Amino acid sequence: MAVRTIRLDRSALEDNDLDARRLRGELAAAGTFLVNLMSSPGAGKTTFLLALLERLCRSCSVGVMEADLDSDVDARKVEDSGLARTVQLHTGGMCHLDAAMTRQGLEALGTEGLDIVFLENVGNLVCPAEFDTGACLDIMLLSVSEGDDKPIKYPLVFGKCEAVFVTKMDAAPYFSFDLERCERNIRARNPRCAILPVSARTGAGMDAATAWILRARAGWKESRNA
Amino acid sequence: MAVRTIRLDRSALEDNDLDARRLRGELAAAGTFLVNLMSSPGAGKTTFLLALLERLCRSCSVGVMEADLDSDVDARKVEDSGLARTVQLHTGGMCHLDAAMTRQGLEALGTEGLDIVFLENVGNLVCPAEFDTGACLDIMLLSVSEGDDKPIKYPLVFGKCEAVFVTKMDAAPYFSFDLERCERNIRARNPRCAILPVSARTGAGMDAATAWILRARAGWKESRNA
Repeated sequence: MAVRTIRLDRSALEDNDLDARRLRGELAAAGTFLVNLMSSPGAGKTTFLLALLERLCRSCSVGVMEADLDSDVDARKVEDSGLARTVQLHTGGMCHLDAAMTRQGLEALGTEGLDIVFLENVGNLVCPAEFDTGACLDIMLLSVSEGDDKPIKYPLVFGKCEAVFVTKMDAAPYFSFDLERCERNIRARNPRCAILPVSARTGAGMDAATAWILRARAGWKESRNA
Repeated sequence: MAVRTIRLDRSALEDNDLDARRLRGELAAAGTFLVNLMSSPGAGKTTFLLALLERLCRSCSVGVMEADLDSDVDARKVEDSGLARTVQLHTGGMCHLDAAMTRQGLEALGTEGLDIVFLENVGNLVCPAEFDTGACLDIMLLSVSEGDDKPIKYPLVFGKCEAVFVTKMDAAPYFSFDLERCERNIRARNPRCAILPVSARTGAGMDAATAWILRARAGWKESRNA
């Protein structure tokens, strides 16, 4: 099956923060829980997402927007899994997504009947942190091979996310990755951040990650009704 | 010993390409071979650089500029090795370096008596590719844990570099990284690109990498005299 690919227009909006708040309001009204997934290139966003979808699909309808500079490698993997409605977003070289681009993606995906939509942002620890996509939840992945010092070096993105999933934990001994030191480095930037070690390959931690996301969605639904 | 840290000013120059060409001319006149090192966060730039410095220091005087959003983690490692004159450049959140920022770094480092200067660019596969730093040589590192599909997904940076050093090769079996497929993906973007597998941990390939860089410098010196 061919993957639908959308070429995003660069947005001309001056006030992205305002637009992001507006999008968040629209998502709340529609009942669509949008999750923005950020990481370095190669941290394992798509593999994590596939392991998550296997678990989420038992109770939710899920959509996935795969943002990339080019190629449809990731969207094809998700599409082939049959676990989620999928669309590939091409940013035309842009290093991040803003709220207007995210809205274009949501319109292309079609959110009707979807409980959760994941936006796999461009692999980049710098620029995506500077632009509110309008998502209801910002999540980061940090793979053990990147090293436990990354929260010190990329403070903005580690400071703004609500959870860090530490991926490829099965490879931690190989890279002498120190989870406790990593947690200290994250908490120095972001004291209330949830930190969950996972391995999509072995499945370790994936049930806890799924439960965490479902709880975040339940909290969002409650605050929406309050 | 404290690491000297320079806070870079954002550059106001409209024509970065022109400024980069000017800087390249100045470097040629001064005999300073500037190497721009690009990669994802956590691909192992600093570890590779340390293994390289051990070998290069036998025949060259080397300087290192460590560009980061924040922190001086990397510059301290290089400084502590005693193998190179070092300066930490803080980009103030900027996702890349342009030629004017690179010039500020060179002035802070002081290039007198140095044969080679390395610029460790911000860990990012998108934005640094769009800005010519004025370097004489653009090199990329791709770690095996990132996956062999990255050249498909980040075409600009893999298209503009003259060599890709594939790092953490000792971990390749762990990640089922396919070097031949990686080479095909790089060559599809950049047919003449040199591709050298290395492991800074075991030292495998590091002598070849050192020799490649010294040959590139010799070629640059010849073209400078021609």
